[in-house]
Amino acid sequence: MKVTVNRKAHFNAAHRLYNADWTDARNAIVFGKCANPHYHGHNYELTVSVKGEIHPETGFVMDMKILKNLIETEIEEQFDHKNLNEEVPEFKTLNPTAENIAVVIWNKLRPKIGKNLDLSITLFETQRNFVTYDGE
Amino acid sequence: MKVTVNRKAHFNAAHRLYNADWTDARNAIVFGKCANPHYHGHNYELTVSVKGEIHPETGFVMDMKILKNLIETEIEEQFDHKNLNEEVPEFKTLNPTAENIAVVIWNKLRPKIGKNLDLSITLFETQRNFVTYDGE
Amino acid sequence: MKVTVNRKAHFNAAHRLYNADWTDARNAIVFGKCANPHYHGHNYELTVSVKGEIHPETGFVMDMKILKNLIETEIEEQFDHKNLNEEVPEFKTLNPTAENIAVVIWNKLRPKIGKNLDLSITLFETQRNFVTYDGE
Amino acid sequence: MKVTVNRKAHFNAAHRLYNADWTDARNAIVFGKCANPHYHGHNYELTVSVKGEIHPETGFVMDMKILKNLIETEIEEQFDHKNLNEEVPEFKTLNPTAENIAVVIWNKLRPKIGKNLDLSITLFETQRNFVTYDGE
Amino acid sequence: MKVTVNRKAHFNAAHRLYNADWTDARNAIVFGKCANPHYHGHNYELTVSVKGEIHPETGFVMDMKILKNLIETEIEEQFDHKNLNEEVPEFKTLNPTAENIAVVIWNKLRPKIGKNLDLSITLFETQRNFVTYDGE
Amino acid sequence: MKVTVNRKAHFNAAHRLYNADWTDARNAIVFGKCANPHYHGHNYELTVSVKGEIHPETGFVMDMKILKNLIETEIEEQFDHKNLNEEVPEFKTLNPTAENIAVVIWNKLRPKIGKNLDLSITLFETQRNFVTYDGE
Repeated sequence: MKVTVNRKAHFNAAHRLYNADWTDARNAIVFGKCANPHYHGHNYELTVSVKGEIHPETGFVMDMKILKNLIETEIEEQFDHKNLNEEVPEFKTLNPTAENIAVVIWNKLRPKIGKNLDLSITLFETQRNFVTYDGE
Repeated sequence: MKVTVNRKAHFNAAHRLYNADWTDARNAIVFGKCANPHYHGHNYELTVSVKGEIHPETGFVMDMKILKNLIETEIEEQFDHKNLNEEVPEFKTLNPTAENIAVVIWNKLRPKIGKNLDLSITLFETQRNFVTYDGE
Repeated sequence: MKVTVNRKAHFNAAHRLYNADWTDARNAIVFGKCANPHYHGHNYELTVSVKGEIHPETGFVMDMKILKNLIETEIEEQFDHKNLNEEVPEFKTLNPTAENIAVVIWNKLRPKIGKNLDLSITLFETQRNFVTYDGE
Repeated sequence: MKVTVNRKAHFNAAHRLYNADWTDARNAIVFGKCANPHYHGHNYELTVSVKGEIHPETGFVMDMKILKNLIETEIEEQFDHKNLNEEVPEFKTLNPTAENIAVVIWNKLRPKIGKNLDLSITLFETQRNFVTYDGE
Repeated sequence: MKVTVNRKAHFNAAHRLYNADWTDARNAIVFGKCANPHYHGHNYELTVSVKGEIHPETGFVMDMKILKNLIETEIEEQFDHKNLNEEVPEFKTLNPTAENIAVVIWNKLRPKIGKNLDLSITLFETQRNFVTYDGE
Repeated sequence: MKVTVNRKAHFNAAHRLYNADWTDARNAIVFGKCANPHYHGHNYELTVSVKGEIHPETGFVMDMKILKNLIETEIEEQFDHKNLNEEVPEFKTLNPTAENIAVVIWNKLRPKIGKNLDLSITLFETQRNFVTYDGE
């Protein structure tokens, strides 16, 4: 009897899309205005989903207070009000597309979540664009 | 050619999180302010999802009017403007966490939905916390 | 050059609608299922709006961090995960309708906001019902 | 390492539910006010979901600008501000239920999306009714 | 001490924008695809706002159950699942723009609301276009 | 008979809060993490509201297609995917708080809107913080 519990969070960050192996011209062609060297930014809306058995004593799959605190420590404090390209080590050499940000978040949270629990990440970059990643 | 049809509904209810086998002190430690003996409450937002083949004559997987009425009779009339702990029989001995409420809703609806249809429940307890359950 | 700055917050609470001067029967007739003596509850969504001149040095009408903290201290800590009728002094003798809750919130915040600033309160009781009050 | 990228779009259209093999009376019984011969309409909210490997050079599963343009050309220009029954060839003989519209959208987009990518369609007909279809 | 109470509702309808005094060509130029003679449609989201004194015995400005029923009888039953141009008398000779629909709704509700109460209408035609009218 | 018509739009931008007349230390104290010299960013959600008489021939206060295009040309093309501090002339010496951005938008649109029409700007910086400005 497995239930998925989901917790929403958010962070505001600057970024640009950029492949350092390419010329500026090619970056501009492929990434368009997202390649702007002065950066732009987003309100990222994050949902962290954890699936597992309900614990019979608590009725919880995972205590949402613990999950909330984990997201704050591992993600919000690292990403919020930051420039992803300049200040977040994972994106020094990795292009901070929504896809790659979701994978980085999953990789950061996975070791902190019990092994008997499945983890999935949903990340809205804008109200019209979002991505999901579950480690598979 | 299977399609999932989804219907949203809601109910407003009071509850507290509480394990009757524990001391009040332990309840307070584990459940925090959610254990408040005077209760608190939520606007629960429910999505009922039913997956199956499209009927060739109607173009429906399931008539949404029937599904809407079923949710009203089986869930809204039982839970809306109620105290879940005090007035809903299923929670006399079961802690009304979002996880357990979703399982109870699934169990109440499952016998009323055709056997050839899959059933899944999504329940928002707040705008930031929600759970999903599909009977597996 | 006056701008209105708005900050959203929320609290989850139990309540019932009840006039102690009336019989239970009259309460049931007027307030319907909202009069349930076992209580029900809501996720209240609050917007606090403050209107005034932009300060030329900061570009702020009011520092949103200060407003956020004020709402937490004065409103969220008093109302969140509480039973409004039983645990919030203002509602010992005042019926906790959305209208009255908005007036109580306005009265609690008004002395904490600069006199040169206008204050308005918007309170959603459900996604379909909300009220606004600006002290006039 | 597969990620799902999702793009939202919308179109406004008129339709009625109607089975040409039935009498008007039977249409009225089964489809109720949705069978109104004068039509009614909706703001359809569409999410197109594409799942696949992240391309190592771009960090994209699929360029969202390309996906956005594809939805505009294939779906929005065909359906927006149209009468689905009268003006969209697919619904000349197919009842434009949300289920069938989702299948038609999937069939129109599937040949335009890379074979190594999975495709799923979510379509909101109203804020409370929505369907999903992934081709299985 | 005046409070505004607001109630949300919705209706789904077909319409077209059309001035019968103009040629079809001029209608097409001015109203674009909104002039499509086969109609298109919307999920109209309505907020009815009523401002007045809080009644000291009930704590209500106006009983929201009464307001909800009034909106159902006067607006939803007249407009929902209808073709506004063909089936709603007010639009036989009046172009059903969002502006005009809001004025018609205000005119229909005004005589049913107490004279000591102010009335305002907000109508979303799409998620990005909406209008407000308060009778002035 | 005046109606307000409202059009929503959005732009994604980077910014930092900073007063060039202050030391970095004072900027850090007053603006906190918003003063980060590497910038952060937001999805700004904009509503432009225009109030005036309904034109009897069109049923419009203002053609929403014209308003949409005006917002695109004057605001979105100037602000979207930009660094407000570095690339938008108005903020070379003006701190890009939400308050100041709303005033700048109002000032840019005011000359383009008919003199018989009132103009108001609402700007969401995050889902919880927003401002309104109407030129008074």
